[in-house]
This record gives sequence, C-alpha cells and structure tokens, in this order.
Amino acid sequence: MIKAMMQKVKAKNPLIHNITNYVTVNDCANVLLACGASPIMADDENEVQEITALCGGLTINMGTLNSRVVKSMQIAGVMSNKMAHPVVLDPVGVGASKFRTERAQEFLRQIKFSVIRGNISEIKSLAKGTQTTTGVDANIADEVTEENIEDVVEFAQQFAQKTQAIIVITGKIDIICGMETVYIVRNGNAMMSKVSGTGCMLTTMITAYVTANPDNRLLATTAAVALMGLAGERAFDRLAANQGNTSYRDLIMDEIYTMTGETLEAGAKYEMFK
Amino acid sequence: MIKAMMQKVKAKNPLIHNITNYVTVNDCANVLLACGASPIMADDENEVQEITALCGGLTINMGTLNSRVVKSMQIAGVMSNKMAHPVVLDPVGVGASKFRTERAQEFLRQIKFSVIRGNISEIKSLAKGTQTTTGVDANIADEVTEENIEDVVEFAQQFAQKTQAIIVITGKIDIICGMETVYIVRNGNAMMSKVSGTGCMLTTMITAYVTANPDNRLLATTAAVALMGLAGERAFDRLAANQGNTSYRDLIMDEIYTMTGETLEAGAKYEMFK
Amino acid sequence: MIKAMMQKVKAKNPLIHNITNYVTVNDCANVLLACGASPIMADDENEVQEITALCGGLTINMGTLNSRVVKSMQIAGVMSNKMAHPVVLDPVGVGASKFRTERAQEFLRQIKFSVIRGNISEIKSLAKGTQTTTGVDANIADEVTEENIEDVVEFAQQFAQKTQAIIVITGKIDIICGMETVYIVRNGNAMMSKVSGTGCMLTTMITAYVTANPDNRLLATTAAVALMGLAGERAFDRLAANQGNTSYRDLIMDEIYTMTGETLEAGAKYEMFK
Repeated sequence: MIKAMMQKVKAKNPLIHNITNYVTVNDCANVLLACGASPIMADDENEVQEITALCGGLTINMGTLNSRVVKSMQIAGVMSNKMAHPVVLDPVGVGASKFRTERAQEFLRQIKFSVIRGNISEIKSLAKGTQTTTGVDANIADEVTEENIEDVVEFAQQFAQKTQAIIVITGKIDIICGMETVYIVRNGNAMMSKVSGTGCMLTTMITAYVTANPDNRLLATTAAVALMGLAGERAFDRLAANQGNTSYRDLIMDEIYTMTGETLEAGAKYEMFK
Repeated sequence: MIKAMMQKVKAKNPLIHNITNYVTVNDCANVLLACGASPIMADDENEVQEITALCGGLTINMGTLNSRVVKSMQIAGVMSNKMAHPVVLDPVGVGASKFRTERAQEFLRQIKFSVIRGNISEIKSLAKGTQTTTGVDANIADEVTEENIEDVVEFAQQFAQKTQAIIVITGKIDIICGMETVYIVRNGNAMMSKVSGTGCMLTTMITAYVTANPDNRLLATTAAVALMGLAGERAFDRLAANQGNTSYRDLIMDEIYTMTGETLEAGAKYEMFK
Repeated sequence: MIKAMMQKVKAKNPLIHNITNYVTVNDCANVLLACGASPIMADDENEVQEITALCGGLTINMGTLNSRVVKSMQIAGVMSNKMAHPVVLDPVGVGASKFRTERAQEFLRQIKFSVIRGNISEIKSLAKGTQTTTGVDANIADEVTEENIEDVVEFAQQFAQKTQAIIVITGKIDIICGMETVYIVRNGNAMMSKVSGTGCMLTTMITAYVTANPDNRLLATTAAVALMGLAGERAFDRLAANQGNTSYRDLIMDEIYTMTGETLEAGAKYEMFK
C-alpha cells in the first residue's frame, strides 16, 4: 500500500522548492535525489514566486530563520497555495524565541499548509503560540509514550482540524494525524537524534511524497515517515562499532537511495490508530 | 598532456575565492583541497575586493543568489578582472527566474569571464537572455547527443566569441569550447546527476586549473572536466550495491584526491573536436 | 585527568549556540553531537539574545562574516557575558581583510571571550590589529616549531593577559595558553589541513568542553585540543590508500563519536609547558 506511494515519487520525480536552513541544506538536497525527487533551493524574494511556480511542492524550514527569508517564505507559500501545490512546514525551534514563535503564527495565518512536521514540543508551541521549546529537541516530559499517546493524538487532531493540515509529530513513536484518520509509525532508532538534520530530511521527503500522491496525502506522509524510520533501522544494523553519527547519516542516505517498495512495505511498522 | 595541467595545480596550490551557494559550499571547499588548491569563501561587499586580490582566481556560482551577494559578485569580478585573475561563472538555474536571468546578463556586461560552465539549458538561457531552464537540469530536448553535437558546438562557439570566454557545456557529452578550438570529453557516469553539487564542484576545479595554467586555459579546463568525469567513472566502479548518492559523492571526492597524472592521462577520453 | 573533562561533556550534554560560517556549519553541528553536546545554530538579531540565553555556551566563528551577522554576534556575545556563559571566538581569516580585522577588534572591546582559537597568523593579526594573514592558513614563516615555541608562548601569554581569554594557537604543535599556565599538545596529523573545517570543529568542541567544565577551563580546552588531534591520528591510521580528505573527515568524526575517556587519556600527548 505505502509501496505505491514510493513508486509514484520515483515515477513522477517531483521538483521540490526548499526555503530552508543552511545547516542541513546539503543533506536535504541529496535526500530528495535519493528518494526519487529533485531539489531547488532558492530564497531571494525577487525570485521565489517564479521558482515555486516551476516546482510541484514547497518546503518551508525555519531552522536558521532570518528576516530576509521570512518574506521569501511568505511570498512562496502564498504562491504555492494559489497554484494548489502542497506546502510543508518544519517549525524548527519554534518556542525557542519570540521571533520564531511569532513568525510561525504569521505563517499559519497567511499560508495553508498541507503538512506540518515537528517534534512534540515544537508542535505544542506552534499550537499554543507559547514558548516552551528547549532548543530543537522535545522536552523529555513531552515525549510521546504508549501511556500518553491517546492524549497526544487528541491534541494533534484538534490542531489538524484548526489548521486543515496533516500534523506529524515525530519521536520514539511517530504520529501522522489527519482530521479524522490517524496513523502511527513505530520505525526508527534512537541514534537518529544524534544526527543533525534527520528531521529536516524527513520533512522535505514528506513534501516529495505528498506532491507525487495528491489523492493520498495522509498515507503518502505515513510512507515518508516509515521510509525514514526504516532507513534508520537498517542503517543502524550496518553501522560498525568504530563508526559514529556522520557515518550513520551516510548509511541512512544509502538506505533511502537503495530501498525498494517491497522492502519498505515489509519493514514499515505502521498502523491506522483511528 | 593534461597530466601537466594537474601537476601545475598541485605544484602551485592556487588560492581560489568562491562566492557561491550554501547548498554545496562545503563540497566546493573540500574538492578544491582534494585537487591541490586552497579555498576561501567570503561574500560580504566590504571585503570581497581585498579577499579576491589575495587569491589567484575567482568562482562566481549563482546557486542560491540573493540581492546582497549580487553586489559582492560584481565587486569581486571587477577587481579580479583588474588584476587579470581568471573569473569563472556557474550560472546555476539561469532561465528559471527573471531575477537570475537579468543578474546573469548584468554580470556578462560588467565582468570578463575566463570560463562559463553550465548545462545546455543554462548556457542557452544565458546566451539568449530568455527563460527556458527547468530548475537546474538540462531540458531533455536540449540534451547534447552525437546527432546534434555539431549544432551545439556552433552555438557554443558563437557564444564564446561574443563573451571571449571558454564555454563549457556539461552533460552526457561535455563540450569545452574556445573561440577556435573545441574539445570534447566523454568521461562521466549518469549517476553523477543524482549527486547535488557535481556541477558546482567541477566549476570551482576549473577555476583552480585555469589559475594554475594561465598559458593553457582551454586545455586546463578540459583537464578539469576529464578529471571530474573520470573520478565519476572510477567512483562508480567502487560503489557497492547498498550505497547511494552521498556515498557516491564521497567516492568521487576520494578519486579526485588520490588520482595521479598518469591515471588521468590514461583514463581521460578527450579529443580535439575542431 | 583530561578524561574527566570528556566525561563531564557527555554527562551534562551542554547546549551550544553557534553563530558560524555556512561552509562548515553542518560539520560543526554533527561534531557537537559526536562529542556529547547539542547544537543550536541561530543568527538573526531578533532572536540571538533569547537563543543564547537558553544555551550553556556560545561559539562565534568569523568564517563567512557579513554585516548582518556581525550585529547578531555582538548581541549574543554581550548577552552570554551577562549570563556568565563561556564565549569562544574563532577569528577565521582575520588579517585577510580590513573588514574582518576591524570587526574582530570591535568584538575584543565589546565581548569578554573565554577562549580564542586560531592559527598563528590569525592570532597574530588579532593581537596586533594588523593585516598579515594569507587566507586561512598560517604563514609558513610563522609556523610554531620547537625552536620558536618559547617566543610564541610569550607572545600568547601577553595576549592572554590582555584579553583575559585562554589563547589557543593550533598548528603542528598546539599551544593552550592561560594567563600563567601553558599546555602544549603534540597530537594531530598533517593531513588535517586538507580537510575544510577541522579548525571550526575544534573551536566549537572547545566551547562544549569549557561549558561543561567551568572550574577547569584551561584543562578542558586542552582536552578538546587533544581529542581533535588524537582523532586525527587514529582516523589517519584507518584511512585506506584510495581514500581522500572527505573520507578522512568522516573518519575523524567517527573517532570523536566513539572515543572513550581511557583512549583519550592514553593517546593524548599533552604536557604542562609552564
């Protein structure tokens, strides 16, 4: 089922516009190529409208936000909405500063997002408009567990209904939350949090997946989340004792590049939660 | 013959100033070190004149162009011209937006380039001042083939004569076009298009090669093109079945770092076309 | 002894704010994770005060300085000082342009640094406020050798006393210079100079080490310098004949990630010079 989502990406080779941070931008470009899409990075306000119009989808990543690109993000987001292209938001570090929190709130008012992906504390900050994030990691107290998953899903569904966006909360358990239907993914490995950019890479792969699967955005998002998590598991199995986090990153990229639809379908641990 | 070009780079260790995009900038820095040159990245308008004066050559890469660096590119380009240093242009994505197309036209008026390298659609857009590029890849219809190579060479020669620059069109077949003499390189591997930045890396290696070989710029450019292509072939042979595009990138870098003049001379598939 | 410094970093997992260049920023993020710390990159003047207040330490790296981030660096530096957080300066390329040299002088007046790390020519330029740097490498004439080490240490101590900062001069021999006590580290491998960013990575690891070891900043800095050098040695031993500088970089990162306190203590070649 999610195998079909992967096949669409590889068959359509969607062109994805990224306005993103300079920390993980190279990984985002290469992961798009690895999963079967193509990247364009462009962030000047004088060209983002035209660039995004050439593309099938848009990723807005707030990782190293500055005043100049805020404007570009707004212009590109509005244009993508006008063309009915998917726009995916990664609210990196929202809650860590008033600047990010307020800009993110503005984005929610100005742009209709197809998907919003973050960790639980980023999504909570975004939903509440409050500052609770500690850097870019979820507060431990806010971790999604088997015990609190019902509450988190209810919270995410309310936010999905409010924003009309698919809400993705990633962590030990990943939640992919539509307005009515919710998927859970249990793939992944704890060491992924030791690699800078796994979240950013997943977000832009989600953009590729929803762009190539316009009729199945919720399942396509679930497929991308499972792909990232399964790649993390399989890469971890290949990791030698003398290898660290950047080797792990490279192995994850290898797995994404070489993974077949059969491997994804067989290894993906996803279920419809409700 | 082209072996001598490589030896000059390694012997002179030219310092290359790069005003480039933030997607592939790290690869550009490391590929310069790998081929025997040294990188400096600096893009503030307050210092580019001094920085470029310290260097032997300048690379201007339009990959993530913004209004701030446009000015820096102009200042650095003019200064390099004044010092008779080579300036190499990579018109990434020209034709994809009015902003890039117009800025590139301005650069052509203000700066005398030694070499301009792009794919066929970028070079066509640059030559025509029109918007035909789809993202950063050549339009399929515009691919250089054995059938249309005569036409492409004629077009490139006209543009070389107009700009007084060596025109390099890379793709399945690479064309290195002087005002009278034209070289063709048939190295490379199709998977190189799945690695973000192979074009950017080649461009800045060309800068290193023409900087170290002022008397043989056309052949030096050909040497750099063959080096990149041969590295791509040799890296592909080493690529394991479970490795993807970023591992391939790293293997290409390995090949560039370790390649000897003998290996380059033996493996380079270049010919004087006319 | 320096083993304890490493253990503190891993136990405390300090959050480090980086205002840094876009060339090596990804390596800086991953090396912080590799050594047991966590990175935040943020450079907009509207948020750096809040971001740095969330963190334990701040790295200011002048690698691709521009007018916009100069202001952010000043705001963040002053805020970190107010909170008594360590601020570490990497004066990349100081001396190569009037812009960098003057901004660095301003930083010295406005911000109290805990540690300043550079190569000998950068530190000399910084100390003298003059322009003598050739790009980002030490002038050969200025290399630290067994013959001139006494003179270099005396110079560094004077600068340490003037700035009240620990002065770190890295090269073939590394000098870690407090106001009274001086350590020397003799780890490392010449090939590290062929990897873009080894200096930047070391600098931000120093920030992590001094943040986690507030009572032993000089020894903590020495530990970070030895860790980087030893990782370079051990990675070089693992480097295959067909591998180049980026593979070497990845192996260095592997070594940093996997190194134990015992290995560091056993392999670190450090001594108290005076």
